[in-house]
Amino acid sequence: MTDRPESLQYDPSRRFPSPLPVSGAWRHGDPVGRRQFAKVSRERPFVLECGGHLDEVEIAYETWGTLAPDHSNAILVCHALTGDSHAAGGFEPGHKSDGWWDDLIGPGKALDTDRYFIVCANVLGGCQGTTGPSSVDPDTGKPYGPTFPQVTMRDIVRTQRLLMAELGIDTWLSVVGGSMGGMQALEWGVMYPGLVKSLMPIASVAAASPMQIAWSAVERLAIVQDPKWRDGWYYDAPEGDGPWHGLALAREISQITYRTTHVFDERFGREPFVPSEELSQWGRYQIESYLDHHGQKLVRRFDANSFLVLSKAMDLHDVGRHRGGVSSVLGALRVPVLTASVTSDILYPAYQQAAMAEMINAGGGDCDYHVVDSPQGHDGFLLESAFLGPLISRTLEKAAVEG
Amino acid sequence: MTDRPESLQYDPSRRFPSPLPVSGAWRHGDPVGRRQFAKVSRERPFVLECGGHLDEVEIAYETWGTLAPDHSNAILVCHALTGDSHAAGGFEPGHKSDGWWDDLIGPGKALDTDRYFIVCANVLGGCQGTTGPSSVDPDTGKPYGPTFPQVTMRDIVRTQRLLMAELGIDTWLSVVGGSMGGMQALEWGVMYPGLVKSLMPIASVAAASPMQIAWSAVERLAIVQDPKWRDGWYYDAPEGDGPWHGLALAREISQITYRTTHVFDERFGREPFVPSEELSQWGRYQIESYLDHHGQKLVRRFDANSFLVLSKAMDLHDVGRHRGGVSSVLGALRVPVLTASVTSDILYPAYQQAAMAEMINAGGGDCDYHVVDSPQGHDGFLLESAFLGPLISRTLEKAAVEG
Repeated sequence: MTDRPESLQYDPSRRFPSPLPVSGAWRHGDPVGRRQFAKVSRERPFVLECGGHLDEVEIAYETWGTLAPDHSNAILVCHALTGDSHAAGGFEPGHKSDGWWDDLIGPGKALDTDRYFIVCANVLGGCQGTTGPSSVDPDTGKPYGPTFPQVTMRDIVRTQRLLMAELGIDTWLSVVGGSMGGMQALEWGVMYPGLVKSLMPIASVAAASPMQIAWSAVERLAIVQDPKWRDGWYYDAPEGDGPWHGLALAREISQITYRTTHVFDERFGREPFVPSEELSQWGRYQIESYLDHHGQKLVRRFDANSFLVLSKAMDLHDVGRHRGGVSSVLGALRVPVLTASVTSDILYPAYQQAAMAEMINAGGGDCDYHVVDSPQGHDGFLLESAFLGPLISRTLEKAAVEG
Repeated sequence: MTDRPESLQYDPSRRFPSPLPVSGAWRHGDPVGRRQFAKVSRERPFVLECGGHLDEVEIAYETWGTLAPDHSNAILVCHALTGDSHAAGGFEPGHKSDGWWDDLIGPGKALDTDRYFIVCANVLGGCQGTTGPSSVDPDTGKPYGPTFPQVTMRDIVRTQRLLMAELGIDTWLSVVGGSMGGMQALEWGVMYPGLVKSLMPIASVAAASPMQIAWSAVERLAIVQDPKWRDGWYYDAPEGDGPWHGLALAREISQITYRTTHVFDERFGREPFVPSEELSQWGRYQIESYLDHHGQKLVRRFDANSFLVLSKAMDLHDVGRHRGGVSSVLGALRVPVLTASVTSDILYPAYQQAAMAEMINAGGGDCDYHVVDSPQGHDGFLLESAFLGPLISRTLEKAAVEG
């Protein structure tokens, strides 16, 4: 009877054959890779929009290219939720993933490192070198864990402003990013209009929608309902005993929202992972194995508490909050803006970027809006470089002339 | 300092103020409401497609209207994943929710109970009176729990065939259902072509797509990663100590996939649930409170193990399995078929019903296909009765004439 497929029981070790790290955060002492560091906490304390504060803020960042003597060629690239400073380059010591915009950043590419000086910083609250929940709290000598204060896009942008000063840069030729990166680009335009010559928020939104909040919320619940999350105090847990089932599930949910039914149909169909187990309750289809693979990959390089803080920071994103609303803020932008949509994006649907463009232009601004007809979904902002490259190049030329 | 909003910690009792049942399953001894019961396990054992078997199968069902002397007016209505036999009628003793198709079933409605005899049975593996994981296993005297064998749509339809015999019905004028209900309708047409005069699979699919499997898979993980699930042995747990956080999370995820960004924009926007907590990490937006409400509601009337079994049964749905593939099976249908799509349905997108219609018609069959332009998403099959009603009526007239 034990050979009968329906006797298969749920066994997480079939999904994740080896134990996963308690936290995938980078820590001092780990290989630094391409990272550079700047302590930017000039203000003491660094007061946050939600009311908390941090005594120390350190930013991990990477740069590509050379800053021109007149500082006219600096570009800030902003990463998305689970990205980090490693926007370009390979999987190499210190970096557990390939550069997320490697197709767009490099010699001769749209963000041409022969011409431009590119900066990408890990965000405040992140886990790849910048101060976040897994960093040591100087008051206690232990990781902040759940005491790490909630941050917002505005806080993140203020730390980037301090980094800019640290690097001696006067102006960004552009601030560029997709998804959460685009939220930062918009905040730059609103908070420091004199310091940016153009903005490129791609597949992003002016204020997180209730649908985006809904997805974030269930992903956070997947983490906090994992008993190994331990109310956020898991950093001392033995190897393999951290909240990785919860973090992996959060990633699996989000991974689905990043892709599309068309991509999955084409790539996986109804293929079982182990054909002989197809008709059993706990047999998996290939799509399930794909999701488990992505869950696992994220756990190796991310931190559950950072996911919670940054996911909530995205929900809190509202460029119009306490500023008279989204349309008046966007209508006041006076630098060239590029925004773009992927037709099949179910997470940041095209109507949101179209509305952004309309509000900017209605106020007398200059927003160029493009749509790529692509089955890639939200991940199109990472994958559709043949579409994005020329648009980015053109916007940079325009910014250079108008600036 | 305790008044600072960011000091709010994650506290599940804020989401669910009172403890929820270990299982929301109906059990013998509970008020029966409109339910009738039939023991249909004529074959002993009732052998299942996946290889397991059941010694006893009892079906809980409801009926509306009167069977005509010539039996020409019987219609089988099939419910979706978390539905049950209570397709029409109110929230009343024995029934913890309003009839899910109350707008379509009743005197003078499309499924006119003055003219037709309507039958709706809780599915095999369910938890509202039909044999499922929460039922007592006659071999042990305890609930089956995780030993309940995996079932498929074909098994469910075979039990419905036995119920049909029990009721003395020769032919269904139609088999009708949305989503998982539509899967059963299709299987009826394939398994018992001589016993049906028409089929109406609405917002459904011929074989579960990898995207549908992906959603089901993360919902199941939400349950099994709840330690209170206890590998499926939770029925003896003390009040309030069952896997309800997991089941609620599974429901919250699925609830998002049933609705749309447009509905959420309009209904919730970015309104906080407790305005003073808006900027805190664990403050909730109204959309989050709405999701918690739906999670809670399901826990009160559903069973976690039934969710696992039926969710997997949906993934296993493939009308073409071991029958030469979907298109040849659909192309062989020879009764009138109605299918319909909701434009904004992201879970059962329109291209799937269009493909179904195309395959039926390409084989020489007769499939009428309609699309409603509606923002309701997958729940449109429950909500768009003004659209569905006339289509259903027309198909019933056609079936009566052609039969």
